[in-house]
This record gives sequence, C-alpha cells and structure tokens, in this order.
Amino acid sequence: MPEFLNLQPPETALKSWLNAFSVKNFPAEEIDTTAALGRVLANSVTADRPVPDFRRSTMDGYAVRAKDSHGASESLPAYFKIVGEVPMGEAPGFSLKPGETALIHTGGMVPEGADAVVMLEYAQRTDQGVLEVTRAVAYAENIIQIGEDVAAGEVVIPAGRQLRAAEIGALMSLGRTNISVRRKPRIGIVSSGDEVVEPERQPAPGQIRDVNAYALSACIEGWGGEPTRLGIIPDDLDQLGKILSSAIAEFDAVLISAGSSASVRDHTAQVIDRLGSPGVIIHGVDIKPGKPTILAVCNGKPVVGLPGNPVSALVIARLFVKPMIESLLGVQSLPAEPVFQATLTVNLPSQAGREDWWPVRLTFTEDGILADPIFYKSNLIFTYTQAQGLIRIPATANGLAANSRVDVFTL
Amino acid sequence: MPEFLNLQPPETALKSWLNAFSVKNFPAEEIDTTAALGRVLANSVTADRPVPDFRRSTMDGYAVRAKDSHGASESLPAYFKIVGEVPMGEAPGFSLKPGETALIHTGGMVPEGADAVVMLEYAQRTDQGVLEVTRAVAYAENIIQIGEDVAAGEVVIPAGRQLRAAEIGALMSLGRTNISVRRKPRIGIVSSGDEVVEPERQPAPGQIRDVNAYALSACIEGWGGEPTRLGIIPDDLDQLGKILSSAIAEFDAVLISAGSSASVRDHTAQVIDRLGSPGVIIHGVDIKPGKPTILAVCNGKPVVGLPGNPVSALVIARLFVKPMIESLLGVQSLPAEPVFQATLTVNLPSQAGREDWWPVRLTFTEDGILADPIFYKSNLIFTYTQAQGLIRIPATANGLAANSRVDVFTL
Repeated sequence: MPEFLNLQPPETALKSWLNAFSVKNFPAEEIDTTAALGRVLANSVTADRPVPDFRRSTMDGYAVRAKDSHGASESLPAYFKIVGEVPMGEAPGFSLKPGETALIHTGGMVPEGADAVVMLEYAQRTDQGVLEVTRAVAYAENIIQIGEDVAAGEVVIPAGRQLRAAEIGALMSLGRTNISVRRKPRIGIVSSGDEVVEPERQPAPGQIRDVNAYALSACIEGWGGEPTRLGIIPDDLDQLGKILSSAIAEFDAVLISAGSSASVRDHTAQVIDRLGSPGVIIHGVDIKPGKPTILAVCNGKPVVGLPGNPVSALVIARLFVKPMIESLLGVQSLPAEPVFQATLTVNLPSQAGREDWWPVRLTFTEDGILADPIFYKSNLIFTYTQAQGLIRIPATANGLAANSRVDVFTL
Repeated sequence: MPEFLNLQPPETALKSWLNAFSVKNFPAEEIDTTAALGRVLANSVTADRPVPDFRRSTMDGYAVRAKDSHGASESLPAYFKIVGEVPMGEAPGFSLKPGETALIHTGGMVPEGADAVVMLEYAQRTDQGVLEVTRAVAYAENIIQIGEDVAAGEVVIPAGRQLRAAEIGALMSLGRTNISVRRKPRIGIVSSGDEVVEPERQPAPGQIRDVNAYALSACIEGWGGEPTRLGIIPDDLDQLGKILSSAIAEFDAVLISAGSSASVRDHTAQVIDRLGSPGVIIHGVDIKPGKPTILAVCNGKPVVGLPGNPVSALVIARLFVKPMIESLLGVQSLPAEPVFQATLTVNLPSQAGREDWWPVRLTFTEDGILADPIFYKSNLIFTYTQAQGLIRIPATANGLAANSRVDVFTL
C-alpha cells in the first residue's frame, strides 16, 4: 500500500486510478427514448433510411424546373402553367412537365419533374392559371434533398454520447422510440464516525448530523449515477470491513465518507486495502482541500475514501467521483466542457508544489467574468452554498495575483 | 394584435412578455430533501440553532487554555497535565483547569476551560502523564466556534435558490429532511401540421415524424418543468383552438410547435390571440433562426408559438422558454450563468439589425476556447446534435470576423 506521505499530484492520481479498473462490458439497458435525457447511449445509432426521405420545400412558393426560369427578370418574366397544389403530408399525386408549376408549402413534397422552388415574392399568379416568375432560381434552390440531414447507414449518434434534447429529437426522427443506454452506475455510500447521526435526529452534545452522504448522493444523481446510502458506521474497523465488503459485492462503486481524525483515516485505508486486489492505488493527493483522499480498486470495483469535512468531500467528489462515473458510463464528451476563464479579484496565497482549489463567487460584467474566492473552512458546509464554481491554483504557482486569469470549473 | 412585420429585438420581446404574466403565488409543495436536487426553494430557510452548536476541534491534538502555551518553544516548552481524552460524539464529561490538557480528535467537542488545540506535531507525551508543548497556540486556534458556519436565526438558503448538492447537505445539517419547493411548472405541448406523424409510425411519402414535441419535452425536463405532450393536431383552426383552450385551462404554460408554412403560422397567431387576454404580445422576433416566434399570455398563462423547424424551435426554446420556466419558478440565480467567452474560428456573415444565433462546436486549447460555427439548415435536426453551445451575433454587427471574441451560451 502506498505511503500516505508519498502524495500524488491530482491528475496523476486520477489517471493511475481510472486505469486500474475496467469499464468494458458495463451493462446496458433498453429504455423509452422519452426517458433518456442525460443517459448515455450504449450503441451507436445509424439511420435506417435517409432523413428526409423525400425532397422537401423549405419555402412557401412554386415548384418548377430551374432551367425553365433561367434569364427571368422583372422586365422579362418567365411563364409557367399552374397544374395544381401539393397537399401537405401526402405525395403530390402528379408530376410536372417542362414549363409547368404547382403551389407548394414549406415542408411539402417536391413533385417529380421539379428541381427548385420559386419563393412567393417572385411569383405572381395571373387570371389565366398562369404564373409569372420575375427571378431565376438555381438548381436545388429552396429544396432539402433526400438524405441531406442524414444518409442511410450513417452513424448519427455515436455510442457514449450523453443524450440532450437535440439527440432525443434526432432519435425520434428515425423512429427510435426506445434505445439502449448504459445502466446508471449504482454507487453505495458509507458514512463513518462515532460523532455522526442521521439528519432526522436531534444531535446530542458532541454529535453532528450526516451531511456528506446526502450531499454526495445529490452529486451522484446529478452526474448520472444511482446513489444508495448504506447508513452510518461507528469507528469500528471490523464493522467497517464487513459493510464495505458487502457493498463492493453489491454496487458498481463504493464511497466512504471517512472519519476525520488521522488515526481513523489511516485505518480506513488499511481496511479498504484488504477488501480485494489491487487495493489502495492512491493514499494521499497533493491537493488542498482533500489531501487524505483514498483511491482504491477492490475486485475490479472503484472505491473512494473521501475526507470527512464536507467542503473537502464535495471538491474531491467533483474532481474524482465525477470522472469515475463518466468512465463507468463510457461517456464520450461532446457537451461543453464545464470550464471557462475568469479574472481573479484578489491575491490568493498558495503553497508551491500543491494544487489548491478555491470555491468562487462569479460576477458577470461587460469586461468578462470576475471570480471572487470564498474564504472557507473545509468543515463549514454553508460557505460552500455560496460557490458558483471552483478555481485551480496550479502546483507550480506560488499563489496567484489579483487580476490573474483563472480557469473556472463548474460544480 | 401586433403586426408580424413589426419585429421586436429578442431582449425587448422577452422582457415585454415576461412582464405580461404574473408569477406571484405559483404553488409550492412539500418534498423530501433527498428528492430536492434541482428544485427551487419556496421559502427561505433559517437556522433554528447555530451550526456547529458546540466548539469543535479542527485538528487531532490537545485541548489547552491558549495563554498557558504562550512563550513555548523548542528550547523552552510549556508543560501540561494530561487529564483525559475527549470521546468522539459525546460531551467530554470533564472541564480543564489552568495547566491541564486532554487529547482531542478532529471533530471532537472542546472541553470547558480550553480555548485552543495544540496540533499533535507540537506536542510530546512524556512518561509521567505530562504533555510537553513546543509551540504557542493563539486563542481559538484550531477550533470552530459555535455558530461559525451559521448563527441561529440566520437565513442560510434564500427562497428562489435552485438546490444543488451543497444546499442539500446544508439543509441536512439543520435537520431539514423535508422542505417546501415550487411545484414544477406543468407545460402542455401541442404539435401541429398535416404532415407530422407520431415517431412510432412509418411516415408515408410527404410525411415526417414529430421531432419538436419530444425535443421540447426534454428541454423542459432539463430546465425544471414537467412536460405533457398533447398530440399532433392537423392544420385545422377550430380543432387547434379547442385543444389550446383546454390546454391553457389545464397547464401552467402552453407551447405550440406550429406548422411551418406562412399561412398556418399567421392563423396560429390569430387562434392564440382569441384564447384570452391580453393575447399575443409579440408576433415576430428580429432574430435568426426563429423570426416567426409568437409570445402570448392568455388568461394569465404564457403561451409560445414556436417555429416548426427543429433547430429554430430549440434555439427559441433556449432563449424564451428557459427564462419563462425560471420566471414561473421564481429562480434567483446563483449557479454559474451558462455564458463564457470563446474565439471565433471563421468569418461569419450576418444581416445588421437582426440578432443571429449560431450553433458552435467548441475546442478547448491552451490559449482558450475556440468556437467553430456549424453551418446548418434550421430544418435539419442532426446538424444540431453536433452543437456544444450557441453564439450570438448582435444586431449592431454586420457579421463577425475570424478571431473575434464571442459569448458562448450553453444549450
């Protein structure tokens, strides 16, 4: 088991850990597409036929053969014989011969023989069923061709895409009313600590209510997992070992909000290390807050020992548990990365060699975004409710000066 | 009813419309705090007692009276009589006299008589039950005071806050296991168009599957509303009027994905205008895509006529339906505004006087974020599934040059 004193930089720690558990063959399930918002597609979806599968008009106007309009102008219009109107939602039921035209609406099916649509403003109906066209149209003008959105057989949504409104609409256009998505990772959460009681209880002197199990559950829910709280375990290593052992068998991943004292933390790592191979991968990350973080893999399942202080636990969850869930789900990122730049409002000290993360308030101004650090104690949850993002002070920096540009990570 | 030709700028249109419906007294409901992620708090939450409500140690160490350590150094340590150990999760059961100390763990309750905690590394236990302290501690050092996180009676989470993991944890620390949140706005969605069929049907020539009702449902779900699809109505104004009239009675807001031809659009506005006062507020917005947007209020309920083309419908939903839902919910924004800056990769043309919105792909580089516009047709849904954000070309601009800085709005 690595030494706690051998602190790893956060990125190295994350990589070593993610590489230590397999995410192949994570199970999929079939669900209604209407229930698929935020779910991750298990298999790439291909179009079974082109979209659209008929030539559609993009304008209200008249379907024509483009070359019959060539040279048309205000002074020298082209003339067409009006032979009908294309009904909406049906095939036209007729085709056009050279010199013929038909009224068509936006979304209507372009009749055979026509290859362009003249917009209403350039067309004038005369009394004799004749159309006067005062401007030439190019071939294919105002028409969506067959397969212009998607060709038959094309991959339209790749496996690993997290589904948003646009993808759900796109799936419906293909008639895919149910789809295969990755099952939500089931994540067991164990709270430990002799001083911790359930929120519905009135704490006695020296006791505090469990905050972390509930805040972590909400995080997991938001990141696409399915949390299960396994209750509060006293600082008893045998009991902790038994609960964790059965949690690892039952869930896809396990989080432990560890007791906060150093001795309990160290024992937690020993308990985890014995639960299955390879055991503890990382014990101690060179980061503030969250140094005592434990990253482990037991019998192929990821296990995280989180700091007991709620702010530390939430920062570490954002930096390690979120990527863990995305890794289990096989997310291939497309949605905007939740990172943007802001200007720091004050000087921030930090210790070189250690990565510091600060919760910030954000102000949106004409000149860009200002990031105002929240001075917190990692055991105070309420200060964190003021946070709109996290900023990183790299390990190479010896603090940051006011007006520095900083990366802001959303919570 | 305003003329369609009298196009309003998007911001003006949004403001006039939001001001035209009342959001006071939107109903609230009591729910379990564990189910409250993303919900909007109906009433401000105040602390019924201070958090923490006892003095807690932030370190593993020894509780002392700070002034007994003053002047202590490696060469001249201070000595304390060890009188016990503070158990976790209980009151100590003893108090300290001057010159006395007790072992305490992180999170432990500081005994009466002590006002600071000496860290383990500056304390050495000798054989005779005596503690040698080699560094002075200041008053209150390594202690969280009563009420330091929150004082009794303080507003800890204001009404209108959208609840995230931190807020859920904070509520639990106060024992608030259920809370009052705004009911999710119930939004009815009507699709119209003779050519539109349900996604499970195989479209006949000239028909297309309904995309908008499903994509809009997903948007509404993501933005905190509760969508109900009311089916596809043919282009029949009587039938449309009847369906809309009962939808307005039943739901908190109604969306109509209108037929795409100009004549149907115009009739839709007339139908909406007759459904209740004040009727249509905005008919036509100076924006691309989405010019034919209808914003109305009928009997106090917001009603939106969305363009039939799916990309236009999704852009307009993002710009108008999202703020509508937030307005109904009374959201007081705290989470990071979904706007950040990027650099445009190519020249983009636009027509001065009209606000243009472009879907973009984003690339995250060392030098910042690049925004690569997606050249789309507003009736092609699949191109939009490539989008990671939207950028705005202001009405004052005559296009944007490559390398311009642009605001990116998340979808």
